[in-house]
Amino acid sequence: MILHSNKIHTPEGTVSGYLTMKDGRILSISEVKPEGEVKEYGDLHVIPGFIDLHVHGFSTGSFWYEKTEDSLNRMAESMIQAGVTTFLGTTGTDAVEVIIESLVEAQSAIKNWTPSRGSRILGVHLEGPFINKEFKGMQREEYCMDPDVMVTKELLHAAGEGNVYLMTLAPELPGAEEVIKHLHEQGIQVSVGHSAADLKDIARLKGFGLGGVTHMYSGMRGFHHRRPGVVGAALYFDDLYCEFAKQTGMTVSHEAFSIAYKVKGKEKIMLCTDCTGLAHVERPFHHYIRKETYIPDGDHVIVKSDGGTEKRINRKNFEEVDGLELSYVESVRNIQREHGFTFEEIITMASVNPAKYIGIYDKVGSLEEGKYGDLLIVEDDFKIQDIYVQGVQHRIK
Amino acid sequence: MILHSNKIHTPEGTVSGYLTMKDGRILSISEVKPEGEVKEYGDLHVIPGFIDLHVHGFSTGSFWYEKTEDSLNRMAESMIQAGVTTFLGTTGTDAVEVIIESLVEAQSAIKNWTPSRGSRILGVHLEGPFINKEFKGMQREEYCMDPDVMVTKELLHAAGEGNVYLMTLAPELPGAEEVIKHLHEQGIQVSVGHSAADLKDIARLKGFGLGGVTHMYSGMRGFHHRRPGVVGAALYFDDLYCEFAKQTGMTVSHEAFSIAYKVKGKEKIMLCTDCTGLAHVERPFHHYIRKETYIPDGDHVIVKSDGGTEKRINRKNFEEVDGLELSYVESVRNIQREHGFTFEEIITMASVNPAKYIGIYDKVGSLEEGKYGDLLIVEDDFKIQDIYVQGVQHRIK
Repeated sequence: MILHSNKIHTPEGTVSGYLTMKDGRILSISEVKPEGEVKEYGDLHVIPGFIDLHVHGFSTGSFWYEKTEDSLNRMAESMIQAGVTTFLGTTGTDAVEVIIESLVEAQSAIKNWTPSRGSRILGVHLEGPFINKEFKGMQREEYCMDPDVMVTKELLHAAGEGNVYLMTLAPELPGAEEVIKHLHEQGIQVSVGHSAADLKDIARLKGFGLGGVTHMYSGMRGFHHRRPGVVGAALYFDDLYCEFAKQTGMTVSHEAFSIAYKVKGKEKIMLCTDCTGLAHVERPFHHYIRKETYIPDGDHVIVKSDGGTEKRINRKNFEEVDGLELSYVESVRNIQREHGFTFEEIITMASVNPAKYIGIYDKVGSLEEGKYGDLLIVEDDFKIQDIYVQGVQHRIK
Repeated sequence: MILHSNKIHTPEGTVSGYLTMKDGRILSISEVKPEGEVKEYGDLHVIPGFIDLHVHGFSTGSFWYEKTEDSLNRMAESMIQAGVTTFLGTTGTDAVEVIIESLVEAQSAIKNWTPSRGSRILGVHLEGPFINKEFKGMQREEYCMDPDVMVTKELLHAAGEGNVYLMTLAPELPGAEEVIKHLHEQGIQVSVGHSAADLKDIARLKGFGLGGVTHMYSGMRGFHHRRPGVVGAALYFDDLYCEFAKQTGMTVSHEAFSIAYKVKGKEKIMLCTDCTGLAHVERPFHHYIRKETYIPDGDHVIVKSDGGTEKRINRKNFEEVDGLELSYVESVRNIQREHGFTFEEIITMASVNPAKYIGIYDKVGSLEEGKYGDLLIVEDDFKIQDIYVQGVQHRIK
């Protein structure tokens, strides 16, 4: 398959030319027309697919709430519509045996995934259970526990060899050092999150394998000039990455994002959604920022706003649940509008950095020969026109 | 007078050559030897004198506590030992009539100053009384008041035409807009300090004449990612200057300073001391950071540490009171050791920026032809060897 565009965004700059995919990979990017039929995209942009390292659920499925292979498959189908070509199914802080059951399901989903399914179910991000109750956020306090290598081994075993790519934990908790070391030995990235750590805790453990922070600013000890906390550490240490979830200005103000951007630069900021798949809550759940309550009702969910309005929608119908949470691409469009980022800056934060962070940049994250044919065709404002996952085209709904 | 050094620090770089002073000003900086006797400094550095825009008192005198012309004169004599060649006598938040009395004294000190006295008593910095009780710090709550143009005019009148260069106020207080406008019309710089302002207050009033923040991080609404406060505004708005007082790591951690430096760069950070002249307190005063109590005792002061030790020293004897507060040059040496700043970075923060901030960079703040002969001869570690104020040499005690 050969695409032509005047704006193919590669690490070496924007190229006007031909991108050829074969066997799911990028065979070449060339100014010279190769043999064969060409799909013409003119002035539309060709960019690498987005990578979401932190997503519990989205739209028609929720791995966090449903904990099934099927839920991950439905996420894959919905998330591809948002331009996400690779994601990590992200667990929440549940009872260890419950997390283990869900990881067994994930192992199967990862193994059975094919590009025609949609977004690639690459692996798992374990958010917890080794987090600090003091900063639990929407995680459940009764299941927060101190880091434990035996438990860690059980979790990794349940997910299957090489399927856990990232763990979020609170490094100030007893036992954290051993768990961080163990994860690091397995090549698993570790983020600080839901943490009351002081800067000195992070300084002490960083070298053992702390790569960044989960949902920067939220769920962590904030910045004070005599106690810089996790936020201070994230800003102070140049090499730590900062993950931002759905940067709408609501959870984290635009100015706070700008300050982090000034300090970290595009090279150390990663975008993600942290969506949960609100349509799939197990019990009535009030979202204090959205000011809505979600009430499960069989195959449906009732959405009650604090203002009194109410609607009942089908959990698994994409058209009905779409828009319940801001999608990856809409979040990208939002920050582009707000901050005026260039294509290069967005691609760095949405594709390059997440891939580098978990060590998969040799396969995805940029448009280069030999990498997967994971790409998006977008307009100037990032409105998606076409999507390819490992060379397989997906229809935009 | 002609000096020779291999390291004369000018805005165009470091020059090996001859600096000639005449009539209190720099006549020339040249690689060619002028006619006349040359004082040889070899590899010692020649740098512009430090400028302290925020100093209530130091060592043998305290304008804040004593409120007299004589106290400013004693400060001038002591501060020159710390490398400060220009300073603003800084008032505190007292009753308006008391501030007025002290400003009348200041007017006289400013008028009668000569270079042989020591550090130049350039003018006044009014810290308050228009500050927010919520962030009063060591200022006295009963005298905090809402901004008032009539009061402002009385204060400016008492100090004498052109003698007030800077005012610190809380812009969120009612009446602030009018006062800021009035000060701006008079060419007086305005800093945000002792303030509970939100970022949006500062955004709204910045254009009327807010140039920066007083003692960054201290005495102001801190940073939160949904309410960025004064700290957030200082980091967010590129054009705002940040003043740091005696950066020892004690009041503001080294990491917090580093974060501000990453965001603002050397161009927007100013050093000062905010010293008060602790030997001159009017009534027993406990310093919660130094963990010491100062008890006036006639011409002496008793210094009682929280640990129980006690010493009695002569208030006006430089040798006895020296070291009670960290001096400007010792603070500079401290941050150079801690952060490894270059000469250019230190000079920018300690001389160039304070001069630009209050609009006197045409006369001081750098070594250039036509500017005052205010300069320091220092070793690599900023240890002072010689001091000149408007060409007059001062002996190091």
